Amino acid sequence: MHFQYENAYDVKERIAEKRVAILPVGAVEAHGPHLPLGTDNVLAERMGAKLAERTDAYLLPTLPYGQVWSLRSFPGSLSVSNESLIMLLSDIGESLYQQGFGVFVMLNGHLGNGTALKEAARRLYEKVPELKVYYFFYPGVKEITARVRESSSAHGAYFHACEIETSYMLYLAEELVDMDKAICDIPNIGEEADCTPTPWETFTKTAVLGDATLATREKGEAILETSLNVMTEIVNKAKRAAARDES
Amino acid sequence: MHFQYENAYDVKERIAEKRVAILPVGAVEAHGPHLPLGTDNVLAERMGAKLAERTDAYLLPTLPYGQVWSLRSFPGSLSVSNESLIMLLSDIGESLYQQGFGVFVMLNGHLGNGTALKEAARRLYEKVPELKVYYFFYPGVKEITARVRESSSAHGAYFHACEIETSYMLYLAEELVDMDKAICDIPNIGEEADCTPTPWETFTKTAVLGDATLATREKGEAILETSLNVMTEIVNKAKRAAARDES
Amino acid sequence: MHFQYENAYDVKERIAEKRVAILPVGAVEAHGPHLPLGTDNVLAERMGAKLAERTDAYLLPTLPYGQVWSLRSFPGSLSVSNESLIMLLSDIGESLYQQGFGVFVMLNGHLGNGTALKEAARRLYEKVPELKVYYFFYPGVKEITARVRESSSAHGAYFHACEIETSYMLYLAEELVDMDKAICDIPNIGEEADCTPTPWETFTKTAVLGDATLATREKGEAILETSLNVMTEIVNKAKRAAARDES
Amino acid sequence: MHFQYENAYDVKERIAEKRVAILPVGAVEAHGPHLPLGTDNVLAERMGAKLAERTDAYLLPTLPYGQVWSLRSFPGSLSVSNESLIMLLSDIGESLYQQGFGVFVMLNGHLGNGTALKEAARRLYEKVPELKVYYFFYPGVKEITARVRESSSAHGAYFHACEIETSYMLYLAEELVDMDKAICDIPNIGEEADCTPTPWETFTKTAVLGDATLATREKGEAILETSLNVMTEIVNKAKRAAARDES
Amino acid sequence: MHFQYENAYDVKERIAEKRVAILPVGAVEAHGPHLPLGTDNVLAERMGAKLAERTDAYLLPTLPYGQVWSLRSFPGSLSVSNESLIMLLSDIGESLYQQGFGVFVMLNGHLGNGTALKEAARRLYEKVPELKVYYFFYPGVKEITARVRESSSAHGAYFHACEIETSYMLYLAEELVDMDKAICDIPNIGEEADCTPTPWETFTKTAVLGDATLATREKGEAILETSLNVMTEIVNKAKRAAARDES
Amino acid sequence: MHFQYENAYDVKERIAEKRVAILPVGAVEAHGPHLPLGTDNVLAERMGAKLAERTDAYLLPTLPYGQVWSLRSFPGSLSVSNESLIMLLSDIGESLYQQGFGVFVMLNGHLGNGTALKEAARRLYEKVPELKVYYFFYPGVKEITARVRESSSAHGAYFHACEIETSYMLYLAEELVDMDKAICDIPNIGEEADCTPTPWETFTKTAVLGDATLATREKGEAILETSLNVMTEIVNKAKRAAARDES
Repeated sequence: MHFQYENAYDVKERIAEKRVAILPVGAVEAHGPHLPLGTDNVLAERMGAKLAERTDAYLLPTLPYGQVWSLRSFPGSLSVSNESLIMLLSDIGESLYQQGFGVFVMLNGHLGNGTALKEAARRLYEKVPELKVYYFFYPGVKEITARVRESSSAHGAYFHACEIETSYMLYLAEELVDMDKAICDIPNIGEEADCTPTPWETFTKTAVLGDATLATREKGEAILETSLNVMTEIVNKAKRAAARDES
Repeated sequence: MHFQYENAYDVKERIAEKRVAILPVGAVEAHGPHLPLGTDNVLAERMGAKLAERTDAYLLPTLPYGQVWSLRSFPGSLSVSNESLIMLLSDIGESLYQQGFGVFVMLNGHLGNGTALKEAARRLYEKVPELKVYYFFYPGVKEITARVRESSSAHGAYFHACEIETSYMLYLAEELVDMDKAICDIPNIGEEADCTPTPWETFTKTAVLGDATLATREKGEAILETSLNVMTEIVNKAKRAAARDES
Repeated sequence: MHFQYENAYDVKERIAEKRVAILPVGAVEAHGPHLPLGTDNVLAERMGAKLAERTDAYLLPTLPYGQVWSLRSFPGSLSVSNESLIMLLSDIGESLYQQGFGVFVMLNGHLGNGTALKEAARRLYEKVPELKVYYFFYPGVKEITARVRESSSAHGAYFHACEIETSYMLYLAEELVDMDKAICDIPNIGEEADCTPTPWETFTKTAVLGDATLATREKGEAILETSLNVMTEIVNKAKRAAARDES
Repeated sequence: MHFQYENAYDVKERIAEKRVAILPVGAVEAHGPHLPLGTDNVLAERMGAKLAERTDAYLLPTLPYGQVWSLRSFPGSLSVSNESLIMLLSDIGESLYQQGFGVFVMLNGHLGNGTALKEAARRLYEKVPELKVYYFFYPGVKEITARVRESSSAHGAYFHACEIETSYMLYLAEELVDMDKAICDIPNIGEEADCTPTPWETFTKTAVLGDATLATREKGEAILETSLNVMTEIVNKAKRAAARDES
Repeated sequence: MHFQYENAYDVKERIAEKRVAILPVGAVEAHGPHLPLGTDNVLAERMGAKLAERTDAYLLPTLPYGQVWSLRSFPGSLSVSNESLIMLLSDIGESLYQQGFGVFVMLNGHLGNGTALKEAARRLYEKVPELKVYYFFYPGVKEITARVRESSSAHGAYFHACEIETSYMLYLAEELVDMDKAICDIPNIGEEADCTPTPWETFTKTAVLGDATLATREKGEAILETSLNVMTEIVNKAKRAAARDES
Repeated sequence: MHFQYENAYDVKERIAEKRVAILPVGAVEAHGPHLPLGTDNVLAERMGAKLAERTDAYLLPTLPYGQVWSLRSFPGSLSVSNESLIMLLSDIGESLYQQGFGVFVMLNGHLGNGTALKEAARRLYEKVPELKVYYFFYPGVKEITARVRESSSAHGAYFHACEIETSYMLYLAEELVDMDKAICDIPNIGEEADCTPTPWETFTKTAVLGDATLATREKGEAILETSLNVMTEIVNKAKRAAARDES
């Protein structure tokens, strides 16, 4: 399953069988006092592993640097530009296609990467149209999230180091969470943040956007398993289509 | 030591103490039948860990995609362009500087990355001259390598999946080496390869450039510890200089 | 109010008074049988005029070409790249700043421009931090839209040539709408469209995403006046802040 | 004739008939006390309308931002870079070609755009060689201008807000000209201005390069109708050639 | 006078005295049967030498590759892109400024380079405003050329391998001209060539735009000495200004 | 042999015969007190002439500007960026291919150009794979240099204005060497210079890296003739291959 632990003699045939490569993409970013800077890397990588297992796909090594514009001034955040990310991802996609892959899944653990991943997918759509490219950021979780959530959401699209993301970590990487330090901090973000460049220090000191104390392993499991089901179905369908195209 | 496992509340003060960030940079690339595709990632990462320990520095998550032009047509190789790599590394360096680091070490496990790392270091030299940037690719090993080597070298600058690199892996990641599959294949590379774009399939089918069967853990240890000493000294000196600059 | 109808002798002093420049940004794009290709230009321009009036701002000439990736294969659509758009908008912003403006509002009539506008705003944030930059795409309309809408929405984020957008046109440019040709076509878009490049011909032949026959001038007025109030408040606040900064 | 007022259902067939798209390109730029900032936009747009009518072509919405390097420091001027303009125009041209157009006319109202338009045309010549691309800046007017002109010309290539351009406006947009404010200001430009970057504030305070008081509607008509004839003939010839190529 | 024949020990002081660097820029381009491909290089270089002598300036080594779009399909033509040229020239200018030069003269022998030289000069105007930059393409020759010319001109702006350019060569590099092969070929270029990308094979087979048989050394001398006088005056004035600025 | 002295009528046929174009690439760079700034240009050009003669190839005009990062702060050095150089060289290569050349030799006289030349060669490998591209920097001289050298080498890869390079000049351009000024200066460069951006002023004031007083014409001849033999063989082989490919 781990692509980089294969050797060059065996891998060719197995690519032809697996057809799908999953690239976890994360970031190093402030996640409050109770979660590690690498939270998005850990989540992307472990979700990637589960998805690879369920779809008999290859898991690529994680790309651990992301676009962290909003939180770049918080301690520990490392940010790269959209353009750098787009170019690198586009290169990786082309390379995968040259290697015989038919499906390239970018499994994203960091919202800020969304723009770059979508743009990279579109560039690949032009350059190597035969390669099917996905960018996943927890697809299909809207309903289940609304159901399990106990605290209110600080923003329609953002969630960060909160009840939800902390629950994800409790499910996938409990050993990296320090619930004793978990806090509740629901900032008032305001309409403007969606209409003008707004570094998050404008509205939060903690970088926690919600009530992390309400996080539980069960909530994380419920949401992430839902999302994994959605992704598994999409990837398996794409895999079958790639097999058909070839024969 | 692992930067991404720190949390945002504690990290600020610790950056001020450690001052040094070490980024392992590798590649996914064919390494013959006995070594994994991720050999350069594994080497960079484990060398990085040792160096971080000895210099009380932060170890950043590994950047696992590199410029693999020469071997890109071999099964399993993934290649990104120099330009993508330069931009990403330059972004990371700027970000580290914003976070308060004084020394940025790119610890490289893949020869093909050399051009990009050097160029990234020069761009950072212009943009953030106060940041001291290093690019290490096994510095200081010339003599010791000549001493321990038993097989002849296929090329003055390249070594790949051979007696030397396999020894590195036996020292740092024995569990990933399958010595039963190790082979000897010393290609005749020819003068032209240094003067014209030359994909390695021109001169080798195995991607092994030497006699991997002669590799031993001891050879790896002798060379790598020598290099680690060289790097440790350079980094510690830079760290002291950074401390001085600040006070 | 119309910047381009001022002359160079009078304009300097008036920029110092008005401080705010509003740039309508639209697109030429297929909008079904009942709406013109230039719908997004018309909407952006007329909303811009109302906003300029209410905030005593300058209205710039409309930028009538946008990023129309999703509908680019439909008859009449013209598309430009994100990068072209970002560069042009960033140039315009810098120029406005040189001319003495303190607030630059990009009033967007086309969803596909969102990425470019946000990125342009961030580039300007680095280059000319004293310039306050907004990108508006019907802010503040979520609740009122839910209230007036009679047909179901085809997608969480897209609305196009449907009950809602047609209502906008009936309020702002009734003379350009041919309600006799309005149709109802609510496609099943599917989860995948948010995770992989998906030209809209995949799920619609009409480019109408909803029931345009339910459109009314009143619905358009209700939503757009709500949004105009939100924008007016934001812009007036920014204008006062710009005045304060200067004095 | 107005492309953006067509709908997507009818337009496909009409593109096949008309084959020609005319894009007015102007600028927002200081034009003295008697002409509006948008003079070049107005001229390009109205010339475009006349040309579209006479050639049964489509008129695209005006691109109202241009390269205004020389006058960028005058009040009201907005300038974008050559590169931004080239990229956007090249994108528009490619898009027109995808839509089935055979002839793309950039009708330019601003001298400073000349470099960008020519370069964009050359890029399109490489990318979509089947698309015939024109860049018009008042072609064919040399003789007639010399004949009607009463004041001397300030420069061999520049004319600006002077007898000539003001006459253009009197013919095409009399309502936007304030002849009471027209002035005569014939600067001594000097040889150097053609050999070194020379912002126009070096030699003029008014941005009027001539005697605007001598402008008349008749002069404008004489020159512009001459130019329209030249353009009409070229476009009609190109249109017939495009028809031939297709059949 | 020849910069590249100085040594690094003496040059610093002499730069401070001379202040002016002259860079000949030419091209390798078809010039008919009687003139060499390197005509524009030879002309730029020898004009440069004369100008350097008369202004006590440094002559830099010739940049012998230019933008030869129009004639690129003729045998022997070598063409580089505007962008490559702009970047290189801008780099050279910055470097000269770092070395202490106050005036940078690009002495151009090839019309097609005009756009790149002007753009490079503008980029330098932003980056190193203290450096005075000139781009010369036979300035000040309009009247004298009209006076000595016997054959009609094929085009208002182009002259190529004709009576005029051949006369230039007879004056500056008679040994490279083969007047026995000189021909007369005055093509009908037509209005369109100024409005659409027009490779010169459209209107000429010889690449001679005029009557080369009428060329004489005297005509060349008359025109070029006029131009040299104009350039000498401009450069000397700039040199004095640079000296003033410094003191 | 000199391409630029051919005329356009004769050259086509001769390109078909010669098939090989040799481009000398040098730099303007400080070379101590006894060698001219243009040393690398002179060496590249004269080596190019010898190689062209021995292989019946065309010699192109020298590109006299190179990447001089390390010595850019020394008096007289002019530096251009890698990117500018790569673009220009790639353009020239494409142009040569369009003209019918089958082999493009970049004969480099300046170590700092190495990265750009290799990258340009790789870009051409993608764009025009039928063109065989070489980048030569004194190939095949390792053994002979070790044999003739009397002074120790300051660095494993660098040689500059020292016993070796001065010997080259004595062989190829004795008239430009002032041996009376030759000095011995063997700096201690240190391990770090290979791992971090290191302008040479860090370790030398003279820019001489060795003992120039030991230089002789004979040493230069021995080394350069060895290298010329290596290059001649490679080029002749490539020329025969190009001939075969065509027929």
